[in-house]
Amino acid sequence: MQAYRELETVFRRHSALRASASMLQWDNSTMMPENSGDARGEQLAALSEVSHEMITQPRLADLFAKAEASSNELDEWQRANLREMKRAWHHETAVPAELVSALTKACHESELFWRKARKENNFKAFLPYQEKVLSLVRESAQAKALAMNLTPYDALLDQYDPGTTSAMIDGIFDDLAAFLPDFIAKVIDKQSKEPAPLELRGPFPAPPQKALGKTMMQKLGFDFTRGRLDESAHPFCGGVPGDVRLTTRYNEDDFLSGFFGVMHETGHALYEMGLPAKWRNQPVGDARGMAFHESQSLLSEMQLSISLDFLAYATPLMRNAFNVSGPEWSPENIYASVTRVKPSLIRVDADEATYPAHVILRYRLEKQMIAGKLEIKDLPDAWRSGMQQLLGITPDSDANGCMQDVHWPDGAFGYFPTYTLGAMIAAQLMDSIKKAVPNLGSQICKGDFSQLSEWLGKNIHSQGSRFSSPDLLKHATGKNLDSALYKKHLQNRYLA
Amino acid sequence: MQAYRELETVFRRHSALRASASMLQWDNSTMMPENSGDARGEQLAALSEVSHEMITQPRLADLFAKAEASSNELDEWQRANLREMKRAWHHETAVPAELVSALTKACHESELFWRKARKENNFKAFLPYQEKVLSLVRESAQAKALAMNLTPYDALLDQYDPGTTSAMIDGIFDDLAAFLPDFIAKVIDKQSKEPAPLELRGPFPAPPQKALGKTMMQKLGFDFTRGRLDESAHPFCGGVPGDVRLTTRYNEDDFLSGFFGVMHETGHALYEMGLPAKWRNQPVGDARGMAFHESQSLLSEMQLSISLDFLAYATPLMRNAFNVSGPEWSPENIYASVTRVKPSLIRVDADEATYPAHVILRYRLEKQMIAGKLEIKDLPDAWRSGMQQLLGITPDSDANGCMQDVHWPDGAFGYFPTYTLGAMIAAQLMDSIKKAVPNLGSQICKGDFSQLSEWLGKNIHSQGSRFSSPDLLKHATGKNLDSALYKKHLQNRYLA
Repeated sequence: MQAYRELETVFRRHSALRASASMLQWDNSTMMPENSGDARGEQLAALSEVSHEMITQPRLADLFAKAEASSNELDEWQRANLREMKRAWHHETAVPAELVSALTKACHESELFWRKARKENNFKAFLPYQEKVLSLVRESAQAKALAMNLTPYDALLDQYDPGTTSAMIDGIFDDLAAFLPDFIAKVIDKQSKEPAPLELRGPFPAPPQKALGKTMMQKLGFDFTRGRLDESAHPFCGGVPGDVRLTTRYNEDDFLSGFFGVMHETGHALYEMGLPAKWRNQPVGDARGMAFHESQSLLSEMQLSISLDFLAYATPLMRNAFNVSGPEWSPENIYASVTRVKPSLIRVDADEATYPAHVILRYRLEKQMIAGKLEIKDLPDAWRSGMQQLLGITPDSDANGCMQDVHWPDGAFGYFPTYTLGAMIAAQLMDSIKKAVPNLGSQICKGDFSQLSEWLGKNIHSQGSRFSSPDLLKHATGKNLDSALYKKHLQNRYLA
Repeated sequence: MQAYRELETVFRRHSALRASASMLQWDNSTMMPENSGDARGEQLAALSEVSHEMITQPRLADLFAKAEASSNELDEWQRANLREMKRAWHHETAVPAELVSALTKACHESELFWRKARKENNFKAFLPYQEKVLSLVRESAQAKALAMNLTPYDALLDQYDPGTTSAMIDGIFDDLAAFLPDFIAKVIDKQSKEPAPLELRGPFPAPPQKALGKTMMQKLGFDFTRGRLDESAHPFCGGVPGDVRLTTRYNEDDFLSGFFGVMHETGHALYEMGLPAKWRNQPVGDARGMAFHESQSLLSEMQLSISLDFLAYATPLMRNAFNVSGPEWSPENIYASVTRVKPSLIRVDADEATYPAHVILRYRLEKQMIAGKLEIKDLPDAWRSGMQQLLGITPDSDANGCMQDVHWPDGAFGYFPTYTLGAMIAAQLMDSIKKAVPNLGSQICKGDFSQLSEWLGKNIHSQGSRFSSPDLLKHATGKNLDSALYKKHLQNRYLA
């Protein structure tokens, strides 16, 4: 017990330092004066170094050995916490310090150069930067794989979606990849025969956008005594579970993107706020990876908010907020506006139906890259043929093709699949919630989200990192990730 | 050189962690949601523990010995930095960890209980808390005294005004104490024969107060690309030199207190912004203690802003800001409004002329307490007789007497004198500036503060902690702290 307690003490402090960094990162994006970046950089670097040293101190290996040897003295949550501490420890210690430092440096340089090269559509100039990053990521993945007894790609994946393996993803994504092209073609055909949605004409001043956003957040259960809403260039949900800092931006010409953006971030926020208070500042008290985090934001945005039930409740509030009226402000028109489908080149602008194709392409390519089966010089061709196969379009440039995302220049391999895994988990959770709460639709029409929140709180939020990601889903819904439920969601929405 | 460089590395990281804490403390007071205090408490505790451990690691003693042995290899600034690192190290290591922890706990409990006891005017109930704090502060002061070869009180003073000793203060404060009662009586007599200043009638809405405050800050040289102005219940200047976070509050009934409050805090801010960039994150790059910091805020507030020259420039801006007119908005009337003198019980509400008497009383009492010559049970009597002697009034209660300040309940002995030392330094600096810039008054009338700022930047701000506090004053003004200059300032202002 003694060794376990000592580990708890180390990780509690580690968590508090990471929390400090998280608050400072929020400040960076919302409050920091434009020329204060150098001071902030020093603060974040020191926090990161000290946190890293805390976890890599030599005595931890011994503490883990002792704690594991007497793990029968621990209860279930403590055992899960020990497992999560060990997982974090592996990720911090498996890679030699010189390699970590070389990778950090290479990613920093590559990301900086990428910004320029993308603007200039110069893949050739960018090639050596991305090659260097990939080579170091491969090395790092191999070191983690060895320590954690996983394949190199799965070791990367484990950083973002613990417990999920590429063997699980392959089947699911292959099934989706087979489904999507024909499905998308049918949706486009169907929508082409329907009248185009009416446009919502602005301007939409920021103050009522903000007031409406806050009203919705509060309605959904966001606790403003433990969180805030501010503005930033790129919306995000930051802070810590006890102090959630959500941001958005207000585009006066485009009200809907801001509105659904707030709904998306609120899903993240409610997850953080609902994490088990008893385990705050311990690894088992953290959210269960990026796929589950994205499932919560997409459940709030795609499953809840983009629905006729929800819009029946929300459109009167929208009309009031801007003092507007007219047929374009009907639930049906707004629903139609935000469910238009059209294959496009850029992932971040993609609609719900084509988004998974973007992700599957990236997943397949990065898996091959990590396995040494695809080299960077062959990436543009592989990208073009993948886009053609999955979406039936071919990019006009590498800037709008394989150079469009920051992830690879930044060394974040293994992250992309979590977007679509999150969307699928969201659909599966919503399927279970609807079974558990048969009159959910009529509750939502009235703006009553209490039973929805209660289900998510009980089955997901309060579970922290008690289970692996696949086990959490099974615990909550009774089954493994099932692509049939996601396909059903897409079919119901777009072809019914 | 190697040992010195290693020390620089440790202290650079130490400074970055303290900077992180400083930013989070600003957030506490300005942005943090009301129930997020527990999360913040964990963050600040972890930062404080890690910073403390960083400085108290055993290898530092050896590094200091080596660096000092080869200090002839260092240049002047490096030697000063080594001295300041050693000073910080003494303050962190001289007191045994158990005593630090006991003192922290006692202060926390005492401060909490004090809030209640002060409200209820219950000195008797508070007595044991304050006794415990004093006893631990005495012990801690003795430990520091031994390590730093100072008297116990001077060891406490060194935390706030490095290099100043009670032997220096005694003479100066005795001189002031002899001067003040008669001076105050004369001022009151003189003012009683003059017409009362006209009242400035509000309300003064917050937005123009804020706009005017920002204009003045900018005029004085506050760089809004490296700093912000926000609101908090208790105004302060926080953040770090590269990211200064100034706060104020807007009272719609009382414009002047907010206005001069901003001028006060801007003095602090300009000091931080002007510290030597080359030595940022090293002890020698820090501001030279609390007395000098207060000298900068009081120079801005009491020497610069409360002057007919400055008000000749500022009153038209005030009239414009609120779109008002009338004789009450003349420079002369505003000057008269903020220079009224009247002995009162509460230090924080005291005017410029009576404030030093409050400080001298506290200084004398705390010096006796640390020396073991005054016990807490005898404090109320000693307070009453001191107030009578220095200000000719006697408190109606302990709540308005010896229990009014948070400093002693919080264990901050040795801090009080810096308020009046700061006021005196400000007067002495202004005396030198006026000699160096003969037409300063006419520059100020025109809102041109460039030569004032330049002098302060060159002689004070950019000097960081290169010198001890007394040496810095001597370097800047050519002489030791001279109470004659402060008395001259008071006489010129109040009796001329």
